[in-house]
Amino acid sequence: MATVEFVEYEDASHEVRQVYDDIMTTRKIDWVNNFWKALAVEPGLLKHTWQRVKTVMAPGALDALTKELIYVAVSVTNGCPYCIKSHTAAARKKGMSEAMLAELMAVVGMANQTNALASGFQVELDAAFENGGRKAL
Amino acid sequence: MATVEFVEYEDASHEVRQVYDDIMTTRKIDWVNNFWKALAVEPGLLKHTWQRVKTVMAPGALDALTKELIYVAVSVTNGCPYCIKSHTAAARKKGMSEAMLAELMAVVGMANQTNALASGFQVELDAAFENGGRKAL
Amino acid sequence: MATVEFVEYEDASHEVRQVYDDIMTTRKIDWVNNFWKALAVEPGLLKHTWQRVKTVMAPGALDALTKELIYVAVSVTNGCPYCIKSHTAAARKKGMSEAMLAELMAVVGMANQTNALASGFQVELDAAFENGGRKAL
Amino acid sequence: MATVEFVEYEDASHEVRQVYDDIMTTRKIDWVNNFWKALAVEPGLLKHTWQRVKTVMAPGALDALTKELIYVAVSVTNGCPYCIKSHTAAARKKGMSEAMLAELMAVVGMANQTNALASGFQVELDAAFENGGRKAL
Amino acid sequence: MATVEFVEYEDASHEVRQVYDDIMTTRKIDWVNNFWKALAVEPGLLKHTWQRVKTVMAPGALDALTKELIYVAVSVTNGCPYCIKSHTAAARKKGMSEAMLAELMAVVGMANQTNALASGFQVELDAAFENGGRKAL
Amino acid sequence: MATVEFVEYEDASHEVRQVYDDIMTTRKIDWVNNFWKALAVEPGLLKHTWQRVKTVMAPGALDALTKELIYVAVSVTNGCPYCIKSHTAAARKKGMSEAMLAELMAVVGMANQTNALASGFQVELDAAFENGGRKAL
Repeated sequence: MATVEFVEYEDASHEVRQVYDDIMTTRKIDWVNNFWKALAVEPGLLKHTWQRVKTVMAPGALDALTKELIYVAVSVTNGCPYCIKSHTAAARKKGMSEAMLAELMAVVGMANQTNALASGFQVELDAAFENGGRKAL
Repeated sequence: MATVEFVEYEDASHEVRQVYDDIMTTRKIDWVNNFWKALAVEPGLLKHTWQRVKTVMAPGALDALTKELIYVAVSVTNGCPYCIKSHTAAARKKGMSEAMLAELMAVVGMANQTNALASGFQVELDAAFENGGRKAL
Repeated sequence: MATVEFVEYEDASHEVRQVYDDIMTTRKIDWVNNFWKALAVEPGLLKHTWQRVKTVMAPGALDALTKELIYVAVSVTNGCPYCIKSHTAAARKKGMSEAMLAELMAVVGMANQTNALASGFQVELDAAFENGGRKAL
Repeated sequence: MATVEFVEYEDASHEVRQVYDDIMTTRKIDWVNNFWKALAVEPGLLKHTWQRVKTVMAPGALDALTKELIYVAVSVTNGCPYCIKSHTAAARKKGMSEAMLAELMAVVGMANQTNALASGFQVELDAAFENGGRKAL
Repeated sequence: MATVEFVEYEDASHEVRQVYDDIMTTRKIDWVNNFWKALAVEPGLLKHTWQRVKTVMAPGALDALTKELIYVAVSVTNGCPYCIKSHTAAARKKGMSEAMLAELMAVVGMANQTNALASGFQVELDAAFENGGRKAL
Repeated sequence: MATVEFVEYEDASHEVRQVYDDIMTTRKIDWVNNFWKALAVEPGLLKHTWQRVKTVMAPGALDALTKELIYVAVSVTNGCPYCIKSHTAAARKKGMSEAMLAELMAVVGMANQTNALASGFQVELDAAFENGGRKAL
């Protein structure tokens, strides 16, 4: 059980309903998932989080599926069950195949391993990587 | 300074040199970065890690750049400076534009925020996400 | 199910009962929560952890509620369900309002996001922050 | 060195300068710290992050210092050096005494320890904590 | 429920069955745990992970029980329930006594606490520890 | 630079000096490392942390070297540079060979990888592991 009472549509204020409506319209679904119903305990938190998620996850220089894969990668590294399951579902909806999921996990597993090895030996940075490979302006 | 003595090419065993050669050939460069020189203190660790990285990061269902972005996302979430800088450089080499980097960070930041919110309120999983959206066989 | 057998009051040694009694007296309750019953498998671990928690969480330069909010913030960032739920309950008992909880989560979410952004871009420290703002003695 | 080129005021667009101006006005200082100069590579990321930080960190149900302490607690748990130093400085500016800092760290240390113990023994939740102590509506 | 369909022995390909058989033979058991059945969605991931686990966890300079304790310590720090429970069981099978488990947790808890304190105060490294105590060659 | 002023021996109170003396006596060295000099800003924090570290790290059901390896494993997983370097040095002093260090890192890397995979696929726990393999009393 969540640590706050979910705000259901029928009990929601006008301000909260507007966000719920926008979530359903944007995602072309007729329900709102629990995450948003928890955030609705503070309408400002709900509204700003949703607006920013909507903007950040929209296709841009990176397509929507790539962004969703990145979201899953972060969620796995943080070990957040709700986030892993909901964003794995979202990624599948956006076209992630089973082969893509398996490769995503292989990369995430490998990155977690080599992160530990680089930290574990306290490897000092090569000069070539100092600025993350950025070009002179 | 690393906690182990790097194994330089000129001091390396035949087994280690073979891995170093393969790294340079695969990446079309003429040097080996410190990470591998640290792992070389245990040739088996070096060899298996490199072979697996090579396999996992090769294009498959996901292209090489997408995999590199995922690698950076994990490294940022773990807060590993060596990993962030070296893989940001690798991603740029594979075609990551400055716009893509900015969007990558926006997604990683957003995911870390919403992971905290989902955990913080201990939101219980919606039935629809229970199996991560997988289809019946 | 926990990985150790809980030590119930009726089965506890004199040493363990003394700690349980002190927990109940200090908290003005008539039961002991599972966390302590697990630690009791090693009486020294139980005793020292409880004594230190009691000291650290007592009002001092920071009041008891502020300390509890900090505890929740750490627990959320670590993603520890037991800790989040038990300390959210403790914070409410000490006076945390629903508005405070919502603001706590907004700050925790924001901090996790900006932590990722600062790490993600590997922002170097401004000279002004080098010593964390401490004054000359 | 950061993985992106900082956007200095003199090179900034009108949109970025407006944010920089607001940061300096709000904080009553005449310089902008590196974190924002990195985010400015993507003006939308800069603008939304700043606006949200400004809102979230403003006094509300929790006062500004308490929010800053929570920010530091998260940053320590994530091990983000930039964040720890800059927000420790910010907390001191908002009135954190040396005694408060020491108590903050004692709580953060204790919470990280007991989080590990609760996870380590996989302690199952007491029924009393199931909903985080929330009252019936 | 996992986000992928487990691959059961009776439905498995020859390649996957070979790994399952090797797991059961190596561990002298007649069943395969869910972790491997999930990885089997990508036979290469299954095969390489198992082969590497088998090699890495075999007795060497460190004995098998010590390696298992280290595994548990990492899993606790990451807060991975599956990993904590399965490796605690594995450690017991390899001879971990209840006293050892309690001491393991005491160390893991202490390390998590002092890690937070060292980060929290941003303690700079003593020159004596710079190279992790390694001897000149 | 640390966020607090180190307390040097010559400036320390009697209470702090007693702890410093005990650290040097216990470790058979003639200096105190920075970690303790930072904690000394709050003598109670210094004293209790040291006393507990001394007790927890002393040989018991687990020998002193095994405990130190576990400490390093946690520190690597948390990515704490001070902790990794100081405890790697401590482990070497207690007899960790270069081969042991390499195996330690191999296990830590593998555990971080498989933790990510178990979380990533959200593998549900096998009934056999439910209680972490504990025996009936």
